[in-house]
Amino acid sequence: MKFTSVVVYAVVGMAAATQAFVPLQTQGTTTARFSSTAVEGATSQVERNENFAKLAGGYLFPEIGRRRNAYVQEHPEMADRIISLGIGDTTQPIPPHILSGLVEGAKKLGTKEGYSGYGAEQGQALLREKIAKVLYNDLIDASEVFVSDGAKCDIMRIQQMFGPKVISAVQDPSYPVYVDTSVMMGQTGNQDTSTMQYDNIVYMRCSPENGFFPDYASMPRADVVYLCSPNNPTGAAATKEQLESMVKLCRERGSILVFDAAYAPFIRSPGVPKSIFEIEGAKDVAIEVNSFSKYAGFTGVRLGWTVVPSGLKFKDGSLVRDDFNRVMTTAFNGASNIVQSGGLACLDEEGQKEISTLIDYYLENAKLLRQTFEEIGFPVHGGTDAPYVFVELPESVGGSWNAFNMILEKAQVVTIPGAGFGPGGEGFLRLSAFAPKDSVIEACKRLKEAFQ
Amino acid sequence: MKFTSVVVYAVVGMAAATQAFVPLQTQGTTTARFSSTAVEGATSQVERNENFAKLAGGYLFPEIGRRRNAYVQEHPEMADRIISLGIGDTTQPIPPHILSGLVEGAKKLGTKEGYSGYGAEQGQALLREKIAKVLYNDLIDASEVFVSDGAKCDIMRIQQMFGPKVISAVQDPSYPVYVDTSVMMGQTGNQDTSTMQYDNIVYMRCSPENGFFPDYASMPRADVVYLCSPNNPTGAAATKEQLESMVKLCRERGSILVFDAAYAPFIRSPGVPKSIFEIEGAKDVAIEVNSFSKYAGFTGVRLGWTVVPSGLKFKDGSLVRDDFNRVMTTAFNGASNIVQSGGLACLDEEGQKEISTLIDYYLENAKLLRQTFEEIGFPVHGGTDAPYVFVELPESVGGSWNAFNMILEKAQVVTIPGAGFGPGGEGFLRLSAFAPKDSVIEACKRLKEAFQ
Repeated sequence: MKFTSVVVYAVVGMAAATQAFVPLQTQGTTTARFSSTAVEGATSQVERNENFAKLAGGYLFPEIGRRRNAYVQEHPEMADRIISLGIGDTTQPIPPHILSGLVEGAKKLGTKEGYSGYGAEQGQALLREKIAKVLYNDLIDASEVFVSDGAKCDIMRIQQMFGPKVISAVQDPSYPVYVDTSVMMGQTGNQDTSTMQYDNIVYMRCSPENGFFPDYASMPRADVVYLCSPNNPTGAAATKEQLESMVKLCRERGSILVFDAAYAPFIRSPGVPKSIFEIEGAKDVAIEVNSFSKYAGFTGVRLGWTVVPSGLKFKDGSLVRDDFNRVMTTAFNGASNIVQSGGLACLDEEGQKEISTLIDYYLENAKLLRQTFEEIGFPVHGGTDAPYVFVELPESVGGSWNAFNMILEKAQVVTIPGAGFGPGGEGFLRLSAFAPKDSVIEACKRLKEAFQ
Repeated sequence: MKFTSVVVYAVVGMAAATQAFVPLQTQGTTTARFSSTAVEGATSQVERNENFAKLAGGYLFPEIGRRRNAYVQEHPEMADRIISLGIGDTTQPIPPHILSGLVEGAKKLGTKEGYSGYGAEQGQALLREKIAKVLYNDLIDASEVFVSDGAKCDIMRIQQMFGPKVISAVQDPSYPVYVDTSVMMGQTGNQDTSTMQYDNIVYMRCSPENGFFPDYASMPRADVVYLCSPNNPTGAAATKEQLESMVKLCRERGSILVFDAAYAPFIRSPGVPKSIFEIEGAKDVAIEVNSFSKYAGFTGVRLGWTVVPSGLKFKDGSLVRDDFNRVMTTAFNGASNIVQSGGLACLDEEGQKEISTLIDYYLENAKLLRQTFEEIGFPVHGGTDAPYVFVELPESVGGSWNAFNMILEKAQVVTIPGAGFGPGGEGFLRLSAFAPKDSVIEACKRLKEAFQ
């Protein structure tokens, strides 16, 4: 029973044995011949960064891929049956107008007039302006927009800027990058193997009981609060009142709010804010991370941005934007000029229409997934203003990694166990609506059978 | 005399006043109305990362751009006359075969069959294989190649992996990213304003006296040694013997060598290694950083890679590649799929030919620049196996920032002062060969006049 041992790995938080590269203990020993004065075995005397030793295992999403591949290797006859509702990876082709932005962006590099080399590390001026205008209705200024190769990379750069001494607060469950990069930066202690939480991170439990919105007021103060809405993985979209209370709290406690709005355009409910900057006073306390990935089909194309308001300050009065600018100019070299050309097309009226159509498509999938689990009889969350459906599992399933394994084995559907997003996700399963519609329909059929 | 004060900034290492965003002290004070319970002035209580306060000024290359723009603003009539031999930015269009790789890479994203979303964070398998085969002649394995959005970004990710506790050694002068990211990561103390060096970095002086190759043996041991060959800014390409001695030293001292080979294909002298892995024993001690930027015209397109050998180990025996893989998967999301398609085309036989032609073009420019300064009567270095020419200035010029200003003012040519690359660069000027040939010819004419 292979899956039993897989579950054991999961319980200890994905053990070292599941890492990408299995240590090759025998390598390097044959190299002594190169130099008679060499250090024995040629192992360097460089100490490993202790913060990396704290990380419990591989990053979640590659881990899911490895488990999928392991299953296929054991059951090659099932390879063609696999349907991925796992990582939130877009599947629909890039629509014509946006595509033409990319293609023309590439083509012009072959001409003397159109060629361009290094651009501003912060992004092309026109793209920054269009983001501010089209997406923020000029609530923010172009000079506050930093164009990047994606939200995940920006989160690391934000951590880089804050450095090792801040205390971070995260929703639990949450997108694993917030916690993992906090650990990598040295902000945390070790992971407590009983609670699965790292010391020195504030875990803000999000559950059906609090509408998946964190009760930061009841938690210890943190310097940096990570909040994602519409949420990955729970699919919850925070209301205006919730966000107002969070901004107020951050102002009172002197915290900086890092607001991850990567799924904002999926919001269809009226009155639900699509940006933290719709909230009064947010420009004094919030940074917003954003991305074209999920609704322009840019997951592989790579384009995002971060807004750092000009008035946001550290305790000493220095501007956060100046330090973020230093990270962007020193540790980054601008998003690809071809890709930025695609970003400009996204912000044309035609591009915006195409995006809306793509979102309709994925939200229709989300609806099918919701319906399926309602019919199965499990409580379902998310999937209306977000591309993720978050399913509450009955205790009989035996935890979310067990459910993941069972569904992979019985239905050949890849999901993501809630526990992968933090201890608070245990007992839940995340399903992504980004698959092609016919795959979603087929997956729904099989899921119903699997849970019968 | 505006330039006098500019020189003063330069002497203190580019002061805070030259940063991208001048602090707007008055901002944020008008926001108190948003919430009666707000912290006064709404300044956060988050401490600024102390490592950022140590950074002396803005990153060098944007600083050069700002000075250029300031000059144009003061002398708008000169705007059209400006020739940039400053930052190493490519100017020639991307040749047809490589371009077709990019264009087709974009086009296929518009089709159902060709669409792809997230790829492996380490890069497409085929690209990793082709890099190992075509560029390294299988000296390394595809699994040791990590494809990225460029060498600059990879250097930060390497620092991220090593963490705050290592001691880094750099060539002096050197590409500023090594030092700046060391400071940002907290590896260093403050900058000594008399020597312009940061405490806790080993500066390895490179000068005409030692052929611009560092004498690491005479310096204190470092954990991580950054070595760039062909060198930016000096243009020196290290010989096989020099690299052998460095690898031997790193093995003896247990140091890890980070070898920056971004300019390797510019090497035309027979016998000069294009990769550190041509040196026996290097796979136990070296990481190699590399890039398509400079010879495929990809400075704005963004594609590079880093090789981390599978046998390279930390002191505790753990594999460096595992930790670098953790950074790449957690803090990065893969290079753009469109761009990777262009990278594949670079590695076709046709792409390799196109690259060779581009390099010929730029090396011809370098030759013109060399000749010009030889005629002026200044000693000239580099420019034969590298796209940079490094000119020794006579004392009468009054330092490299003065020379930069004088040349900008008299000849409207943008260069880079050697001092921008570290204290060891004082008294030198770097000129880039990446301009169009007719601009280089014109610049050479004006430079001769300016120095008459």
